[in-house]
Amino acid sequence: MTGLFITFEGGEGCGKSTQIAALKARLEAMGKTVVQTREPGGTALGESVRNLLQYDDAGQGMSPEAELLLFAASRAQHVRELIAPAIAEGQIVLCDRFLDSTTVYQGVARAIDSKKVDTINQFAIGDTNPDLTILIDLPPEIGLARVHARSDGQLDRMEKEAIGFFQAVRQGYLDLAKSEPKRFLVLDGSQSVEELETQIWQKVEATLLPL
Amino acid sequence: MTGLFITFEGGEGCGKSTQIAALKARLEAMGKTVVQTREPGGTALGESVRNLLQYDDAGQGMSPEAELLLFAASRAQHVRELIAPAIAEGQIVLCDRFLDSTTVYQGVARAIDSKKVDTINQFAIGDTNPDLTILIDLPPEIGLARVHARSDGQLDRMEKEAIGFFQAVRQGYLDLAKSEPKRFLVLDGSQSVEELETQIWQKVEATLLPL
Repeated sequence: MTGLFITFEGGEGCGKSTQIAALKARLEAMGKTVVQTREPGGTALGESVRNLLQYDDAGQGMSPEAELLLFAASRAQHVRELIAPAIAEGQIVLCDRFLDSTTVYQGVARAIDSKKVDTINQFAIGDTNPDLTILIDLPPEIGLARVHARSDGQLDRMEKEAIGFFQAVRQGYLDLAKSEPKRFLVLDGSQSVEELETQIWQKVEATLLPL
Repeated sequence: MTGLFITFEGGEGCGKSTQIAALKARLEAMGKTVVQTREPGGTALGESVRNLLQYDDAGQGMSPEAELLLFAASRAQHVRELIAPAIAEGQIVLCDRFLDSTTVYQGVARAIDSKKVDTINQFAIGDTNPDLTILIDLPPEIGLARVHARSDGQLDRMEKEAIGFFQAVRQGYLDLAKSEPKRFLVLDGSQSVEELETQIWQKVEATLLPL
C-alpha cells in the first residue's frame, strides 16, 4: 500500500485552498483516505509557529534567517508527526505549501543563499519529498487584489510585503518548476475554478493509475 | 572600540545564573556596559520560542529536528537583533547558553548528525562567535538535585529528561571544550560560589587586559 504526497504552491490569492478542497472531495468520492494540511502548521507545534510567523507582535523585525528556521521547524514536526505516518498508511496527503515555499520566499525573494536553504530544507523533510507539486501561477497583482478583497484589511506579516517581493516569488516558482519538470504541474491561475479543477484532476488520476 | 562576547555553558543546576550575575556586577563596577541575556530567548521572538520549547503543550512529542531548528531560530534572531549590535557598540555581552548547548544537547545527547548541527549553528550565528566560553562542569546528579530543590516540582520539558541524557550532555561538553581549548575555560562546579567567581574573574580580567 503506497500513499501519495501532493503539495500545492503559488503566490497569495492564487486559489490553492479552493483547489485543495475540490481535489479532496473527488478523492474521497473514490473511497480514498485524504489528509488535508498546510504549512506553516499542521500540528499543534506548527500552528503555534504559524502564529508567531504571521500575526504575533513578537514577529516584528524578524530576521530572514530566523524566519527560515521557524518555517523549517514547523516542517520538521509536520513531516514526522503527520505527513510521513499518513503516507506510510497508504493515505493521500494534500498539503497547502511545503518546502518549495521556503526555497522561493526565503531563498529567492529574501535572497538567502540557495545552498543553505536547500541544506536546511533537506534536514527538515528527511526523505519525505512530494510526489507531485501543483503550482498555480498568477500575476501577483491579481492574487493580492483577491487577498485584499477577502481580508477585511487584516493582512498577515507576509501579505504586507511590497509588490516586488511577490514578483520575485512568482519568478522563483517558475524557475523552480522548470528545473524539476517531472514533479511540477504548472497551471494558469487566471483560468476559471472549474478549468483548474479539471486539469488538476486529470493529472492526479494519471498519477494514481499505476498505484 | 571592541566589545566582548562571553557565553556560559553547563548542565542543569551548574550555577551559571549566579556566576553571570556576579560577573556582571564586577564588570559594571569597572564602568563597563554589560548586556546580560539568555538562550533560548533574549528577544521578543526568542522568548516566544522559549515558551514553546519549555512549557507549551504544543511542545509535547516535539521531534529532535524541530527542537534543533527552534533553538536555531531563536539564536538567529538573538544574534542579529541584540548580540551583534551590542558587540559592535563595544559592550560586553554575557549569554546564558549559546551554540554549544545545541551542539551538545541536540547533537550529542539527541544524536543528530554533528555535521548537520554545525551547519545549522553556523547559519544561525553568521560570524558572531563567542570570544570566551565558560563551562561549569558538574555531575548531573548534583545539578539536578539543585534544580529539583528550587523548582517546586515545576520542571521544564528538558529538565524532565532521564539521567542518561544529562550524562551524555556532560561528556559532550567536556569533549567539545577539549577540542577548542583556546575558547573554553572549564571549571569545577562543585566548588563554592566564591571560588568559581574568583576563577572566572581572573580569566575575564586577563581577556579584557589587551582590549
